[in-house]
Amino acid sequence: MKNEVQSIAVLTSGGDAPGMNAAIRAVVRKGIYHGLKVFGIERGYEGLIHGMFREMNLGTVADIVHRGGTMLMTARSQEMLTPEGQKKAAEQLHHRGIDALVVIGGDGSFRGAQTLSVQSIPVIGIPATIDNDIPGTELTIGFDTAVNTVIESVSKIRDTATSHERTFLVEVMGRKSGSIALQAGLACGAESIIVPEIEADLDEVSSKLLRGHQRGKNHSIILVAEGAGSAYKIGEELRLRTGFDTRVTILGHIQRGGNPTALDVVTASEMGACAVDLLRAGKSDQMTARIHQQVIGLPLEVAYGPGKPFNQSLYDLANQLAI
Amino acid sequence: MKNEVQSIAVLTSGGDAPGMNAAIRAVVRKGIYHGLKVFGIERGYEGLIHGMFREMNLGTVADIVHRGGTMLMTARSQEMLTPEGQKKAAEQLHHRGIDALVVIGGDGSFRGAQTLSVQSIPVIGIPATIDNDIPGTELTIGFDTAVNTVIESVSKIRDTATSHERTFLVEVMGRKSGSIALQAGLACGAESIIVPEIEADLDEVSSKLLRGHQRGKNHSIILVAEGAGSAYKIGEELRLRTGFDTRVTILGHIQRGGNPTALDVVTASEMGACAVDLLRAGKSDQMTARIHQQVIGLPLEVAYGPGKPFNQSLYDLANQLAI
Amino acid sequence: MKNEVQSIAVLTSGGDAPGMNAAIRAVVRKGIYHGLKVFGIERGYEGLIHGMFREMNLGTVADIVHRGGTMLMTARSQEMLTPEGQKKAAEQLHHRGIDALVVIGGDGSFRGAQTLSVQSIPVIGIPATIDNDIPGTELTIGFDTAVNTVIESVSKIRDTATSHERTFLVEVMGRKSGSIALQAGLACGAESIIVPEIEADLDEVSSKLLRGHQRGKNHSIILVAEGAGSAYKIGEELRLRTGFDTRVTILGHIQRGGNPTALDVVTASEMGACAVDLLRAGKSDQMTARIHQQVIGLPLEVAYGPGKPFNQSLYDLANQLAI
Amino acid sequence: MKNEVQSIAVLTSGGDAPGMNAAIRAVVRKGIYHGLKVFGIERGYEGLIHGMFREMNLGTVADIVHRGGTMLMTARSQEMLTPEGQKKAAEQLHHRGIDALVVIGGDGSFRGAQTLSVQSIPVIGIPATIDNDIPGTELTIGFDTAVNTVIESVSKIRDTATSHERTFLVEVMGRKSGSIALQAGLACGAESIIVPEIEADLDEVSSKLLRGHQRGKNHSIILVAEGAGSAYKIGEELRLRTGFDTRVTILGHIQRGGNPTALDVVTASEMGACAVDLLRAGKSDQMTARIHQQVIGLPLEVAYGPGKPFNQSLYDLANQLAI
Repeated sequence: MKNEVQSIAVLTSGGDAPGMNAAIRAVVRKGIYHGLKVFGIERGYEGLIHGMFREMNLGTVADIVHRGGTMLMTARSQEMLTPEGQKKAAEQLHHRGIDALVVIGGDGSFRGAQTLSVQSIPVIGIPATIDNDIPGTELTIGFDTAVNTVIESVSKIRDTATSHERTFLVEVMGRKSGSIALQAGLACGAESIIVPEIEADLDEVSSKLLRGHQRGKNHSIILVAEGAGSAYKIGEELRLRTGFDTRVTILGHIQRGGNPTALDVVTASEMGACAVDLLRAGKSDQMTARIHQQVIGLPLEVAYGPGKPFNQSLYDLANQLAI
Repeated sequence: MKNEVQSIAVLTSGGDAPGMNAAIRAVVRKGIYHGLKVFGIERGYEGLIHGMFREMNLGTVADIVHRGGTMLMTARSQEMLTPEGQKKAAEQLHHRGIDALVVIGGDGSFRGAQTLSVQSIPVIGIPATIDNDIPGTELTIGFDTAVNTVIESVSKIRDTATSHERTFLVEVMGRKSGSIALQAGLACGAESIIVPEIEADLDEVSSKLLRGHQRGKNHSIILVAEGAGSAYKIGEELRLRTGFDTRVTILGHIQRGGNPTALDVVTASEMGACAVDLLRAGKSDQMTARIHQQVIGLPLEVAYGPGKPFNQSLYDLANQLAI
Repeated sequence: MKNEVQSIAVLTSGGDAPGMNAAIRAVVRKGIYHGLKVFGIERGYEGLIHGMFREMNLGTVADIVHRGGTMLMTARSQEMLTPEGQKKAAEQLHHRGIDALVVIGGDGSFRGAQTLSVQSIPVIGIPATIDNDIPGTELTIGFDTAVNTVIESVSKIRDTATSHERTFLVEVMGRKSGSIALQAGLACGAESIIVPEIEADLDEVSSKLLRGHQRGKNHSIILVAEGAGSAYKIGEELRLRTGFDTRVTILGHIQRGGNPTALDVVTASEMGACAVDLLRAGKSDQMTARIHQQVIGLPLEVAYGPGKPFNQSLYDLANQLAI
Repeated sequence: MKNEVQSIAVLTSGGDAPGMNAAIRAVVRKGIYHGLKVFGIERGYEGLIHGMFREMNLGTVADIVHRGGTMLMTARSQEMLTPEGQKKAAEQLHHRGIDALVVIGGDGSFRGAQTLSVQSIPVIGIPATIDNDIPGTELTIGFDTAVNTVIESVSKIRDTATSHERTFLVEVMGRKSGSIALQAGLACGAESIIVPEIEADLDEVSSKLLRGHQRGKNHSIILVAEGAGSAYKIGEELRLRTGFDTRVTILGHIQRGGNPTALDVVTASEMGACAVDLLRAGKSDQMTARIHQQVIGLPLEVAYGPGKPFNQSLYDLANQLAI
């Protein structure tokens, strides 16, 4: 890693997240700004193994900064989990004279990157997932957009909840993490928020519904992270306890797409640029992390470390404000 | 009905639709403009039977023109289906000296209105339902907003479909009517549109997917009206025929809410005003209808008549443009 | 014009309007569907004269249906106003064996088209302008989007107007036509609407402000079409008459762009397809027009005929509802 | 300040900002949660001096969390700048037995608060201004929403810029601070960003335009903070240097309004709750500040201290990515 990098590649891997395009653009343009050659790899590790490279220039990444999804496409690769696949992947890079790789994705994608690092290819990870569940960084690319998409959707659902005086359970993404449910729930004034990190107390949720009813409030929104249990079951439990009609809406894939928010684009741009700076400084096995309004490099291991602590104080606040 | 109306009431009934508030505002302000007293009835026929009236003034309907839902709330009333309920409802109006009633809702709501008409209460119906399935009017209040909500949502889903090269089936509202699916499908460039009015030819849909694949197009959006069959089953059928991975998203209740579009507000305003004019002219048992850019009164029976013909030529066009 | 067209071209001209891309896509795909060759001409008549042609295929127009602006770009051409320019333009088409031309734009663009028609090139015009000021068609492409953009912007401005209890004058587009001001004004509940077609009665506007003030309403939105006089001067006049602080915001170019609404895309798609059908049927010198929910061909002269009548009844309604 | 507060009041002052309502709601509900009485004061210091108080309860702040503007209204008060006004203001609070005041606004509003503090009324400031120019806090309420509004608007303008191949100068808010211009400019991929903090090098801006032109890029967006000079003059200078047609759009008041983003609502909620906690802990003369993902109390003087340093590295990044 003594020699300066002269040629780098970038790929997106795992689930898509709004802001990935802004990160790609930043890697490409920051690279070109410093005189590097930059290659884009299509379809994640699948494309890496099978040689789907294209050289990127300023124009290739024009007009994508504000678009959702990823222009390089993404995929999940079984082959990259095998030693053979990993070897082929490294060969594709060596053979093209590409010195280093930037991987935009989640922690699974970072593990793939490290199999290349042990084959002497410097790698940098950029955390992009709407779940915001990667330790070490305050923010992952896509989270802010997803939360805003949820509050826009809930705002529409609230029109119906209010008009029909109903209790709506809205299931949002987050298998292991209640981050989206928590932020969006606080932001849209949800009456209750149910997350995987904290055992739901349905008696308490029911009491709150009944208390609201007594003061004349006949509609409620309850946000349920998908990992916290079936929204349908929870709805049924609440119906049994309160006698209120409950409805369930599962927001689903609309949470993954859409034009990224300013915060996601700015973060993605800073992370993309930071990745190039790290490679130019001879670093590897790092991920870009946003900490205290700055983007810096941290060891990739941080991403696999103990999970991000749940923001208990924000959760408590949400409960206090939804009395 | 010789005597001029001096006091009218307005209610919303059935499922809520964006633009109902604009219609309420128009009834109230147009009524006040002509010197009438106007009462709002909360919770539809339920509130009518149980006397939930409030007098409306200019300020009561301030700042609602652009809000989704209905400030008067809505409900489905079992009691209004019984002769006793219908009698109570008429008594509530007679007893308050209210001369006439405007009902904002779908065809079921209009039938309730006619039970009052036979008890000497002039009634006018304003068609409001996102399904646009009421005969006689080109447009029902809420439809344009719902269609735009669908295309915004599909636009987000398309980001993921493109990035992951997947086929997405998006289920939209419409139990008997494919109107939302058709308009939104054409407007968002859906590759196929499946509606209740036309038997889906899954072989043809599959061929189109395969043809697209051959020209290098690996993602598709298929819009499915809920009445056209289970999106999950259709997705599975397509997977079996094509070998492509398919995903399903059910848009659900977000389609009912949201701020109304300009077209829905303008139509609702014209219809609300027309309803007042019809009552002032001594009419009853009419619904307001938008025909040829104008809003006029038509007999309420039109709403129960033969269903709106399916827009076959628009459907054909959508297919031709999605080759 | 006996022989069937086999090869057509399409261009956009004049000011851009949301939905132009959907019209281009419809011309291209409907043409290909019927076995025609379709060429796109970049930069309007300027590109026609200078030979900026590209052959279009299904993929060329993929993923544009919901995007604002025009992928073919547009320009105003001085050269096309000269006989030499017109001759060159016709030669470019003849020389490439292109049989007919579709022009997407306003009435000025249609006049350019007719100079080609007299040189034996069948032409069809598709009316696209946010001003909705072309006679013969109920709707021009872009109008519905522009109106919705205005109401979203006014909705933001109303937050400040309400919070600061101020009177805001919002200037919207429309040099000769008050259509945007009128539709948007009614749709956002503007307190007054000032249009070029009707002499503004500032005494009446002031009285309304003062009446509102007396009932406790201290904020107002007044929509002013740009052709109706300087919003600053009107604001100053109102300030002098009422003593209220007035502010002016000029919405400007944000009204021209943005993703088209469903109505604009559907209309544009129908018009694009209709244009191809008209050419295939041997027609020329026609424009596509939306009348009574259908898109048909009308003589191009209609576009230059007596202006669209101002919708006085909608204007009166807006005034009645804003009492 | 030994005795625990039992009754507090809250007001909004200065320019409105999206998220103010969420802050009010948090002060009210967090206060009630802890058993306090909470009063809302309408129209800022003007209302304080003239006794416009209302007691707030849970329902008073229902359904406002996601709305722009301020339900308490705001005003600029000349009287509060005088010793008499300040005395009256304190008396209004003393006389009602209100123990403490929360002021939501900018640094000018905080100075007003301190005149009450010297009259033995504990005060806490919550920084709310779209300009994000208050030292000590990473974020002020309203900034994130304003930036996102700007990028949505620029996105519409870019449609026209691209279609007409023009250079657009878009003037955004920020008299002394280029924060909005910088964040939004980076987020929307503006070709140049002109801010008050850094002398604009119009030769460099022109060179970039010409370089872009040479690679075939004929449209550009230049963001200009209002304090950086007249966008019209800058546009004219660029036209003279490059020969390109330039257009100017002034975004104006739409930047102040609109529904707040998730980040603004969450920050506002945390700040409102923190203000109540600070008062309960016997603090005064503090402002709530967001630092390192936490909201804490800082001395109010921090707000008047040396200005926030300009984010030079973000500015450099924006330039590098817009090569």
